[in-house]
Amino acid sequence: MSERFGERVRAALQARGPLCVGIDPHAALLAAWGLTDDARGVREFGLRTVEAASGRVGFVKPQVSFFERFGSHGIAALEEVLAAARAAGLLVIADAKRGDIGSTMDDYARAWLTPGSPLEADALTVSPFLGVGALAGTFDLAEQQGKGLFVLAATSNPEAESLQRSTDTTGTTVSASIVAEVSARNAALSPRGEWGSIGFVIGATVDWAAAGIVPFAPSAPILAPGFGAQGAAPTDLRPRFGEMSDTVIASESRSILSAGPADLAEAISTRATEYLEVAGV
Amino acid sequence: MSERFGERVRAALQARGPLCVGIDPHAALLAAWGLTDDARGVREFGLRTVEAASGRVGFVKPQVSFFERFGSHGIAALEEVLAAARAAGLLVIADAKRGDIGSTMDDYARAWLTPGSPLEADALTVSPFLGVGALAGTFDLAEQQGKGLFVLAATSNPEAESLQRSTDTTGTTVSASIVAEVSARNAALSPRGEWGSIGFVIGATVDWAAAGIVPFAPSAPILAPGFGAQGAAPTDLRPRFGEMSDTVIASESRSILSAGPADLAEAISTRATEYLEVAGV
Repeated sequence: MSERFGERVRAALQARGPLCVGIDPHAALLAAWGLTDDARGVREFGLRTVEAASGRVGFVKPQVSFFERFGSHGIAALEEVLAAARAAGLLVIADAKRGDIGSTMDDYARAWLTPGSPLEADALTVSPFLGVGALAGTFDLAEQQGKGLFVLAATSNPEAESLQRSTDTTGTTVSASIVAEVSARNAALSPRGEWGSIGFVIGATVDWAAAGIVPFAPSAPILAPGFGAQGAAPTDLRPRFGEMSDTVIASESRSILSAGPADLAEAISTRATEYLEVAGV
Repeated sequence: MSERFGERVRAALQARGPLCVGIDPHAALLAAWGLTDDARGVREFGLRTVEAASGRVGFVKPQVSFFERFGSHGIAALEEVLAAARAAGLLVIADAKRGDIGSTMDDYARAWLTPGSPLEADALTVSPFLGVGALAGTFDLAEQQGKGLFVLAATSNPEAESLQRSTDTTGTTVSASIVAEVSARNAALSPRGEWGSIGFVIGATVDWAAAGIVPFAPSAPILAPGFGAQGAAPTDLRPRFGEMSDTVIASESRSILSAGPADLAEAISTRATEYLEVAGV
């Protein structure tokens, strides 16, 4: 794995466009798919979604909580799903939103980003509540392994606004500070303007001006939930993300998964095409 | 499980004092204990720590990342440790710092707080980066099941200061907002001044005035890392926590675990006694 994660994201976006298929086997979807509400059900759900996504999109994003609900058996199911997705050539973003300090955080990073680890993914979502600085060891580990991170920066849910728009003594919002700190690190590792491997989670419905965030350099992947069932359409991508549009990974889950297993591949193809048209690749 | 978590914490504090033994099987400690750096090693480490803690303290706090590092086999080991600790009558705080929104967060809560779930604990640490409001479903689920939560409010690590001391439009710090929002909820559920079941993580070395937080009512458990190897001593408990001292669960990990398996029970007894003396129970 010599190529850095940011560059692999760029290649995947160019080849397949921005759609990322969320793998969210929550109870209602398991029932709708005729699957059992247990570890066997989430395994089957995940493997079928990987099969349908393979060759049609560049990215999948398993949501860890839906597997963790079933304890070690659910995590074993997730391991199979992760391995199948990577074997299919998909870039796999483990949506776990882990966040801690020091050696504790380092071991989360090892769990998800070490080649050969049973939970190996290509990238992991992480939470900066304990400070971006507390993720330093995780950044190092990801870089060493050619892996990526997506740091929660500005989420779409209204309950998050008060916290994420709070300001420090210089008047900088929490979201803006996160973007600035991570971008400085990406810049240090991207002397020739390569894409950074530490990206951000920025919701598709976030008002950048209100959140205090501005376009950043070097380019880094933006994982954008909020498309599909949460309200944003493919045609919203360029108006919402402006000059950062080319780095957006648009994540949809329920809007696609609700097609059901028989029609899933077609639903993914249709939606992927809609994104490719607006992406203008 | 008719008694609410907050009241069970109060009873445990009165019976055994504030010491909580962290179960942190990181690689260096596994080596020092002569255990293998794999799922079998963390299982053995956890079970021996539970055995040594049993009858000597009221609380244990397994750190999930050190088990998650080994994927599903590590999580299976954690399930055994959780079950053994609960069977021994210890109150078990799963230190997982999970944080997400909506049905995703709800499933984390189900994983850790549902009676009969393989990962059942008595309480879970959670992160409010997506807003305290995003945890509403988790609060409901915990209450229904007689379980507890510890919401990250003010951590001791210096990297966290800038974010956690940022202020909203009313000048309230992030930490203070979290304490206020959770306390309002506890108050609604504690009409006769019973202890709340949603507690906080507030580091032992946090400067409450600088963090903008003040004593709160009704009483709710404070899980306080930062004792032991991180710098605070049992005699610091009352000076640091003032009128909230009686609700503090003082968490120590490395300082105790470094005693090694043969001397662990004695190390726990000695330290528990030191806390009982300052707690003045």
